[in-house]
Amino acid sequence: MAQSKGTVVLAYSGGLDTSCILVWLKEQGYDVVAYLANIGQKEDFEAARKKALALGAKKVYIEDVSREFVEQFIWPAVQANALYEDRYLLGTALARPCIARRLVEIAQREGAQHVAHGATGKGNDQVRFELSCYALCPKIKKHGIPVPVTPKTPWSMDENLMHISYEAGILENPKNQAPPGLYTKTCDPANSPDTPDVLEIQFERGVPVKVTNTGDGATRSSALELFVYLNDIAGKHGVGRIDIVENRFVGMKSRGIYETPAGTILYHAHLDIEAFTMDREVRKIKQGLSLKFSELVYNGFWHSPECEFLRECIGHSQEPVEGTVRLSVFKGHVYILGRESPRSLYNEELVSMNVQGDYEPADATGFININSLRLKEYHRLQSKVTVKQDE
Amino acid sequence: MAQSKGTVVLAYSGGLDTSCILVWLKEQGYDVVAYLANIGQKEDFEAARKKALALGAKKVYIEDVSREFVEQFIWPAVQANALYEDRYLLGTALARPCIARRLVEIAQREGAQHVAHGATGKGNDQVRFELSCYALCPKIKKHGIPVPVTPKTPWSMDENLMHISYEAGILENPKNQAPPGLYTKTCDPANSPDTPDVLEIQFERGVPVKVTNTGDGATRSSALELFVYLNDIAGKHGVGRIDIVENRFVGMKSRGIYETPAGTILYHAHLDIEAFTMDREVRKIKQGLSLKFSELVYNGFWHSPECEFLRECIGHSQEPVEGTVRLSVFKGHVYILGRESPRSLYNEELVSMNVQGDYEPADATGFININSLRLKEYHRLQSKVTVKQDE
Amino acid sequence: MAQSKGTVVLAYSGGLDTSCILVWLKEQGYDVVAYLANIGQKEDFEAARKKALALGAKKVYIEDVSREFVEQFIWPAVQANALYEDRYLLGTALARPCIARRLVEIAQREGAQHVAHGATGKGNDQVRFELSCYALCPKIKKHGIPVPVTPKTPWSMDENLMHISYEAGILENPKNQAPPGLYTKTCDPANSPDTPDVLEIQFERGVPVKVTNTGDGATRSSALELFVYLNDIAGKHGVGRIDIVENRFVGMKSRGIYETPAGTILYHAHLDIEAFTMDREVRKIKQGLSLKFSELVYNGFWHSPECEFLRECIGHSQEPVEGTVRLSVFKGHVYILGRESPRSLYNEELVSMNVQGDYEPADATGFININSLRLKEYHRLQSKVTVKQDE
Amino acid sequence: MAQSKGTVVLAYSGGLDTSCILVWLKEQGYDVVAYLANIGQKEDFEAARKKALALGAKKVYIEDVSREFVEQFIWPAVQANALYEDRYLLGTALARPCIARRLVEIAQREGAQHVAHGATGKGNDQVRFELSCYALCPKIKKHGIPVPVTPKTPWSMDENLMHISYEAGILENPKNQAPPGLYTKTCDPANSPDTPDVLEIQFERGVPVKVTNTGDGATRSSALELFVYLNDIAGKHGVGRIDIVENRFVGMKSRGIYETPAGTILYHAHLDIEAFTMDREVRKIKQGLSLKFSELVYNGFWHSPECEFLRECIGHSQEPVEGTVRLSVFKGHVYILGRESPRSLYNEELVSMNVQGDYEPADATGFININSLRLKEYHRLQSKVTVKQDE
Repeated sequence: MAQSKGTVVLAYSGGLDTSCILVWLKEQGYDVVAYLANIGQKEDFEAARKKALALGAKKVYIEDVSREFVEQFIWPAVQANALYEDRYLLGTALARPCIARRLVEIAQREGAQHVAHGATGKGNDQVRFELSCYALCPKIKKHGIPVPVTPKTPWSMDENLMHISYEAGILENPKNQAPPGLYTKTCDPANSPDTPDVLEIQFERGVPVKVTNTGDGATRSSALELFVYLNDIAGKHGVGRIDIVENRFVGMKSRGIYETPAGTILYHAHLDIEAFTMDREVRKIKQGLSLKFSELVYNGFWHSPECEFLRECIGHSQEPVEGTVRLSVFKGHVYILGRESPRSLYNEELVSMNVQGDYEPADATGFININSLRLKEYHRLQSKVTVKQDE
Repeated sequence: MAQSKGTVVLAYSGGLDTSCILVWLKEQGYDVVAYLANIGQKEDFEAARKKALALGAKKVYIEDVSREFVEQFIWPAVQANALYEDRYLLGTALARPCIARRLVEIAQREGAQHVAHGATGKGNDQVRFELSCYALCPKIKKHGIPVPVTPKTPWSMDENLMHISYEAGILENPKNQAPPGLYTKTCDPANSPDTPDVLEIQFERGVPVKVTNTGDGATRSSALELFVYLNDIAGKHGVGRIDIVENRFVGMKSRGIYETPAGTILYHAHLDIEAFTMDREVRKIKQGLSLKFSELVYNGFWHSPECEFLRECIGHSQEPVEGTVRLSVFKGHVYILGRESPRSLYNEELVSMNVQGDYEPADATGFININSLRLKEYHRLQSKVTVKQDE
Repeated sequence: MAQSKGTVVLAYSGGLDTSCILVWLKEQGYDVVAYLANIGQKEDFEAARKKALALGAKKVYIEDVSREFVEQFIWPAVQANALYEDRYLLGTALARPCIARRLVEIAQREGAQHVAHGATGKGNDQVRFELSCYALCPKIKKHGIPVPVTPKTPWSMDENLMHISYEAGILENPKNQAPPGLYTKTCDPANSPDTPDVLEIQFERGVPVKVTNTGDGATRSSALELFVYLNDIAGKHGVGRIDIVENRFVGMKSRGIYETPAGTILYHAHLDIEAFTMDREVRKIKQGLSLKFSELVYNGFWHSPECEFLRECIGHSQEPVEGTVRLSVFKGHVYILGRESPRSLYNEELVSMNVQGDYEPADATGFININSLRLKEYHRLQSKVTVKQDE
Repeated sequence: MAQSKGTVVLAYSGGLDTSCILVWLKEQGYDVVAYLANIGQKEDFEAARKKALALGAKKVYIEDVSREFVEQFIWPAVQANALYEDRYLLGTALARPCIARRLVEIAQREGAQHVAHGATGKGNDQVRFELSCYALCPKIKKHGIPVPVTPKTPWSMDENLMHISYEAGILENPKNQAPPGLYTKTCDPANSPDTPDVLEIQFERGVPVKVTNTGDGATRSSALELFVYLNDIAGKHGVGRIDIVENRFVGMKSRGIYETPAGTILYHAHLDIEAFTMDREVRKIKQGLSLKFSELVYNGFWHSPECEFLRECIGHSQEPVEGTVRLSVFKGHVYILGRESPRSLYNEELVSMNVQGDYEPADATGFININSLRLKEYHRLQSKVTVKQDE
């Protein structure tokens, strides 16, 4: 019997593409360890295990990474208000470095020199997978797979606990509307309940620590349960659907339709409590850092010195982001209703129109005069220049 | 009879505060010219004219600035995707420099050395008014008015064609939910129609030039009519409500509840067509400029060299932003359905998962390897440092 | 005898202006505590003490804040490569919050409700002083002093350990060249030694920890001594002179001539070791933070939440900035000669033109092809548009 | 005789590497057109022509692109104050897109489908060349050349009108000092003249239009002559040498020693006249754009939509940058002596310490009070939090 060429850990999905890759790797003489990450997608994991073994996998790892996905990847994104190109909440982009990190760990545990995956199209995911692997283990060899990608009909999907994406197939024409039956994580707002759910979400250090449904008094506190509960509520009310054209790292524009139910609620809630508790100028600096963070995550640089640096800085900014936001979830939309916090920088007396407090109207005059100095100088010069040109 | 101390042009609203100011200025010996800007608010302008004359105004200007408000102030904000602190569409902030510009023009026409206004609270509007006036006419004197501001019960409002704001009074407690009867520009989504309106909005150079309702075939093309029509549709479906805490230029946090119906539709539609037609890297640079633009507009620096500069740069970026966005307006939310453009940088063949096109998989390998060089070096060094620390 | 109106702590310089203020405060019925900060300026402190007492000061504090100035204010600026408007090393701006912090401490120790200072011109220093005081002690009252500023002839100076500034008087005409006799901290490069001093500066966490003169073997290690030594060497070789027009926070342009001997050497040395040890992308983010930091320091916001936040972030970035820079100081200029570091990210083998190492030329092809995808798409569209326009 | 495989235009330098490539291309069956750009390097162009023909080139183009290099590439960099990583004036990076543009023009004129060049190492120049070519002519094929790069001893050089670089060989050890005989464009400051040259440089729209030597009255006005003259003066006084470690686009750090004589003078002069004439806030925005511009140029994206956009924006900012800077060039350093401009925003009366002018001291009080509001709130909250933690 031929000697093994070594061990490959394959990020296995149970689907056709990665099954073909598994077989092909075996044929090439590799021992294959299949690794299937449970990151919250709907999947029959035991069936996948059997299939991998049947196809010749030496070993199968089914790893539940849901909790670390929420706590170590989604939470930092919530703290950052991470949004790629003003719209995309980065559901897939956040999952890749989480899946890849475990892939590398398994490779190291198994003494494997190779990893393989099925993300071989024109997309971001190949980049995200491989950059993560190389950053965490520079010596790992990525196995190039000649297996052709299966055309996806009527479209392709990628799902995890945070979101599901639909792209390719009939969606590739950016003019085509998403067909009604496409969505799977959220209810059609046209058929969603006629009464809202009103939630109170409590934050500490910029991450949610408790959610309370004021209707039935239900509460959730652990990261994973809380996130799953928000997915349920948001899904029931049709919250979190977007249809966008975005710019991929490899230089092309692509069209994607996404559902991010819990993520959408948390985006709005965190924005609100942050604005309430964070100093204006700190917020402005942090906003710039978050823009960069979102771009890096999208492009696959989660495991990079610059992204680590940004997470530290952003994390530091979240120290005072504490308090409770009250919001209503209804017919595809999230409405902020009110907020309170022991760390608020909001000073009701200072802002009140009915109380003078420490605010001296004369100060405003001075403030405006000094701010206008520069504008007056500019006007003075412009007039001079204009007069000259008219002569 | 006492000699006049000169002429003051007063930005008159017809309300109690500016009426008191008018009387007080007369008592001080000034000739008062009342100027009432019609910027789309609901108001009985003729009643206001009569009132001003009855109170002693020498002359009353009622100036319809709606069209220039849309074309010269709202359109640049649409091009910029202007958003203050991630949420506020700047409805009041955009109106102030438009109103102030006409105020200065009238002062110059009337040979008045003074202007006066009623925005004397702790807010942004005094700053916005006065910076605009000083920037446009450095020699103008602003008249300081000792008239106390009337406590607003149950809250205060400011309205124009683009938006209405509610603040102060019972809303000053940021925990208090907005009372149901507060909103005036938008229908409660709970009572809004059960079928959406589907619109097609056509853009040229980043501004809307035509809207078509695919349901009844209604179209609007002129800037003002188009904007009013979008206000109607968005208002009918409850689109554009927000409840936020924001940071004022003068250094305090305040709570505001806003309705911006048409502005909300245009924000989403423009984002979409821009992403479809603008190069990724140009977009990123432009996004940074827009952040700065939004801050400047909020703070009252519309009429400033830096804001002029930004408008020129942003305007230049909009040259290719052309095409049509299809969207649905329903139950408080705007859903993008599809888009098309003769200037699109979206290449369906290039992105297609079913066609290889010019995209060489081997290129992705090289791209990833080069991008990972830096990450590998960093890992190499970190390992060295860690090993050393462990010794 | 009249009752005291309370105690004022006066930032006293020993000069005419603050002496007048001292007398005036006494006349107004205040007890005056004079505080004179020794921040490295050349001054007869004992003479100043006697003068203050003779003028009626109840108590005189002469506080040596040089060491904390270097360690807590200059070092963070070195870490940041802080530079205002591309040229000014912030010598005065860094001193103000250091002096003001002690002023507030003394006021608190003495139970004084008031502070006073002599920086009442049109400049930045009034702003810097007072913002620092209010930030550190919101309840402190700043005493407004009607004493007119003495015209400075032929110019005014402000000195501390880091720098000296010359402005006003004959220098107010920005065309006038600085007179030859003006400079006091640095030798005229025309008369400076004809042989360089070659120094090795060792950094840890982005701050200098040791300087060695390779000529005579002299070394300095403590922060203060090291900084003084660099001042000596740089001063001897005429390093650190600039003549600039800058933008003051209050909105006007001013002209200043500055000498910053040690600061100039450290700016160049730190830039070099940082580039050698810091990841490229971390550096780029840090550079943006430093720009903001410099602006805040200039404007007087050292003691602010945003500046604290920036110092934490920048400080964090300096963790790997370690190693030794070799440089030559000669005739007004600093020349970097070489550098070494245990934390360097420079990989001689990887970069070598004579060794292939891990670098695959084919990877560069893929990298370039992917990077050019977007450019090709843009060209394709531009051609289409141009053709259309030509038709 | 074998049929030609088509025509290749080769960017030919006359050196060993590109000569080998020429021969190899002939052997492969291509017709080779040699193109040698005269971009200001010292070279025997006629000898190179003969050599190319002798090696089998079908045709030789020797193109003088010096003038367009100065006017279309260096001038925009001067306007931008372009500086990569705070130190490098981009001398090589600016030349590549200039050379490549002509390469593509020649390919189009000759109907060639292929281009080739000798920049095949690990560096930036391959990227810069090829990105430029693809951006300008997406269909061009770059010819991959298997010819090994010749080890450079003792180092390699790249020269053009703006600068010369030295790297590789013995310089690859970043600790090694540059040997004394290395520099070719500038005199050793130790041996440079003992009297300075004092120049007056006049700018219009941010570019130099005239230089006058106040010593001998010499003047230069045309772009190319002016630049050459500044090279002479700066070279004579040893101005423009740097020794840096920089980050290449392909992800490695490299060490380079550069001479940029005229560019260094212009950098300082332009900074000065810009600060004198440009509004503070416009400057700040423009500074951010310039940082991005410098990075793009370094990375090879001169011919890209984003770099075009930046050039337009930066160019627009230069409209008021007009006036004359007086400076001294001496012993390796450039000293600004004074400046004047008809477009200056410097207001001598406003800034004067001896004249009150329009500046009201009370305004400063109001300005400071409003600016401190936010700081006081922050302090108030911090105290509350601290007290709570102490309980």
